[in-house]
Amino acid sequence: MKITCSQSELAKGINIVSKAVPTRTTMAILECILIDATSNEIKLTANDMEIGIESIIEGEIEEKGIIALDAKLFAEEVRKCPPVDVTIESDDNYKTVIRAGELSYDIVGKPGEDFSKIPVIPRNEPVIMSQFSLREVIRQTSFTINEANSNNKMMTGELIEITGDNLKAVALDTSRISIRNMKLKESYSDKKVIVPGKTLNEIAKIVTGGAEDMVEIFFTDNHIIFEFEKTTVVSRLIDGEFFKIDHMFSNDYETKIRVNKKQLLEGIDHCTPILNNSAEKKPFIMDVKDNDMNLRIAAVGNGMKDKVSIEKDGKDITIGFNPKFFIDALRVIDEEEVNLYMVNHRSPCFIRDEEDSFIYVILPVNLQE
Amino acid sequence: MKITCSQSELAKGINIVSKAVPTRTTMAILECILIDATSNEIKLTANDMEIGIESIIEGEIEEKGIIALDAKLFAEEVRKCPPVDVTIESDDNYKTVIRAGELSYDIVGKPGEDFSKIPVIPRNEPVIMSQFSLREVIRQTSFTINEANSNNKMMTGELIEITGDNLKAVALDTSRISIRNMKLKESYSDKKVIVPGKTLNEIAKIVTGGAEDMVEIFFTDNHIIFEFEKTTVVSRLIDGEFFKIDHMFSNDYETKIRVNKKQLLEGIDHCTPILNNSAEKKPFIMDVKDNDMNLRIAAVGNGMKDKVSIEKDGKDITIGFNPKFFIDALRVIDEEEVNLYMVNHRSPCFIRDEEDSFIYVILPVNLQE
Repeated sequence: MKITCSQSELAKGINIVSKAVPTRTTMAILECILIDATSNEIKLTANDMEIGIESIIEGEIEEKGIIALDAKLFAEEVRKCPPVDVTIESDDNYKTVIRAGELSYDIVGKPGEDFSKIPVIPRNEPVIMSQFSLREVIRQTSFTINEANSNNKMMTGELIEITGDNLKAVALDTSRISIRNMKLKESYSDKKVIVPGKTLNEIAKIVTGGAEDMVEIFFTDNHIIFEFEKTTVVSRLIDGEFFKIDHMFSNDYETKIRVNKKQLLEGIDHCTPILNNSAEKKPFIMDVKDNDMNLRIAAVGNGMKDKVSIEKDGKDITIGFNPKFFIDALRVIDEEEVNLYMVNHRSPCFIRDEEDSFIYVILPVNLQE
Repeated sequence: MKITCSQSELAKGINIVSKAVPTRTTMAILECILIDATSNEIKLTANDMEIGIESIIEGEIEEKGIIALDAKLFAEEVRKCPPVDVTIESDDNYKTVIRAGELSYDIVGKPGEDFSKIPVIPRNEPVIMSQFSLREVIRQTSFTINEANSNNKMMTGELIEITGDNLKAVALDTSRISIRNMKLKESYSDKKVIVPGKTLNEIAKIVTGGAEDMVEIFFTDNHIIFEFEKTTVVSRLIDGEFFKIDHMFSNDYETKIRVNKKQLLEGIDHCTPILNNSAEKKPFIMDVKDNDMNLRIAAVGNGMKDKVSIEKDGKDITIGFNPKFFIDALRVIDEEEVNLYMVNHRSPCFIRDEEDSFIYVILPVNLQE
């Protein structure tokens, strides 16, 4: 194989597919990036058997061929190459030379035929949305996913549901639910899948385009496929039935609070020094009285008090929460003002806008006061 | 005690003295920052018994007093305070309240009297240099210090020697020597001390002023003292005789190379991917022939080759080095062109300018070729 492409194009392609290189694996071949120049295009591939990413890069093929190169070493070497044309040449013994000007790297590759290629999956009608919107949906929900949760695999992923022209993303753990509804430009047939959190977090890193750059998303029984520019990401889905949560939602409330988001976030974030310096995870207490929200947290020997102005509709309330859950949600909300809805000190608090474009549900902590 | 000062002034003072808070200590009181408002100024102090830092901050004293507050918690809380006036008030039981607008933190302090104050050291003639120059001298030598070297305490510090109007800084380990000579504006009586590396590295972080901002440096038998603006840093010295190195220097050479610093640094840095991916620390080989410097490194299965143009005076040479030592030195040299002087493949390489304002001595690796 002998190919030539610009250093920047090569580095960009490597950066994209690297997101699917497993950090730990028993299959050494999966630690490689596959360079496939057997047809008329140069395709880079990485595959951790959960996510696979293919990206086609611009370049010239002087001699067709295929080779798998250690991903970490290959990526570091290409990053060190000067910004000129880079030639990659490998012989029948998989000995490979990466050449850029006077600089050359020798690297022993592996047979490309051993690489686990990404399955070819029949695809039908794609759902189309902008790269910006996809990134936003992920950013505003995926913080709730616990990728490492080994007790409940549903909590390692996120529900993506298409109903007509609405895309709904739901992530939850034992204490909170994050929901994002987004209007699509067209209507589609109904779809409902559970996507691994890792897939969403990696996708958010490589879908770097704006509101004008589109992604096509294909749904199959076992896979979700993202296609954009010259890149294809194929991910396995999580098998099973997602949590039923509809019964949790009602429009009843006893207390409605309208508050400046930045002020509320800063007020609750003032708990952070106390939490960082306390072995015990203490809740903060939100004490709503008339048009004041008093915030306080106490640990052994130290504590914090703060006050935020609010507009209140309904009853006063005293309720406790894990500060992290509020901080996580408030950080990803773009609105200047937010509404909180509460029933009593044992029932969840809802942070939602009028259109339900986002709903964050946070369970309170039992105060035992 | 009751004092008021601006959040920014307080945060700045805490940031400076925090450099002397020990990360691990058996004396809990040393994990504190002392606020001393017993006289007419507000003085913050931290002391790890090796380095002590005092900084006076602007503010108003409403009630004189002294209190020691846990450094980490205090620093985090002040950082979270809004940019307004901050009041710190403590009672006879060391209960302290930090107040900024509606926000308040409660923190239980410790009696200030228990704090190990910084010794009062009689000082005479200060050596004066700019903060910029002091930072440069440290940056250009301290990378050679191994603070963790438990076999040889001389290698955990740096020689600072004043002779007339010359300041000389020398740091070394078993494979290299870094020397910086700097002309001072005035002449001083001779001084020769060994300063702990930790002191120099912390000083470099807090001496942030420019070429017009001065530092006064006092030398005593057991201490070095840095005074600038409203801050005083007192450090113990390392006791003993520094290595004799003068016999290593001569002006003889067999090969003199003049090379563009950036090109040489990049060429040697091209070894980094090979080093990062090899368990064994391989040397790189510098093969000088006519007006070319060929660089190469080889590990199991992979390697690098590069070529840099040079001007050569004297013999061709093939010699091996630890790439890190060259990269470290070349990174801190400001000159565009550098001169390398070598005798043979077993003798050290000297990187130095004509005026000896810097000299980096790097021992070669035995090539066994």
